[in-house]
Amino acid sequence: MDLHEVIGLIAAVLTTASFLPQVFKTYKTKDTSGLSLTMYIVFFIGVVLCSIYGVYLHSLSIILANSITAILALYLIFMKIKYK
Amino acid sequence: MDLHEVIGLIAAVLTTASFLPQVFKTYKTKDTSGLSLTMYIVFFIGVVLCSIYGVYLHSLSIILANSITAILALYLIFMKIKYK
Repeated sequence: MDLHEVIGLIAAVLTTASFLPQVFKTYKTKDTSGLSLTMYIVFFIGVVLCSIYGVYLHSLSIILANSITAILALYLIFMKIKYK
Repeated sequence: MDLHEVIGLIAAVLTTASFLPQVFKTYKTKDTSGLSLTMYIVFFIGVVLCSIYGVYLHSLSIILANSITAILALYLIFMKIKYK
């Protein structure tokens, strides 16, 4: 694997994994007052489109990374609506 | 431009633009209690690596989208540290 593919892979893992601490924090504290619902809705649509883009590119890593991020974003949308 | 490139472009614009409402909200309310610092630090490193990946791919849109997102994430890190 080329160096730039390794960098791309690490980047994808980090951006996807970064939503986990937010999900854990929101799950534990139910504190959603500072979260922007608009951000997560727009972001969710964006990553769903990214997943569709991945289908066109036949890239399993793009599909996987973005689908996981979409699920995490959807959870935060749900929490924001429930605990606003 | 192919349909899948249009989808990819819209996806990139949406995921980048999604951080703007969060930045505006945080700027206006200074309410960072629900924000996860870990999320934004890991996310920041991820999008910086994405930008570097874009340099390798000679993709101006990847570089631009991720650099803008990195700046927005950095602002949220700064606000979280200042108003925690």
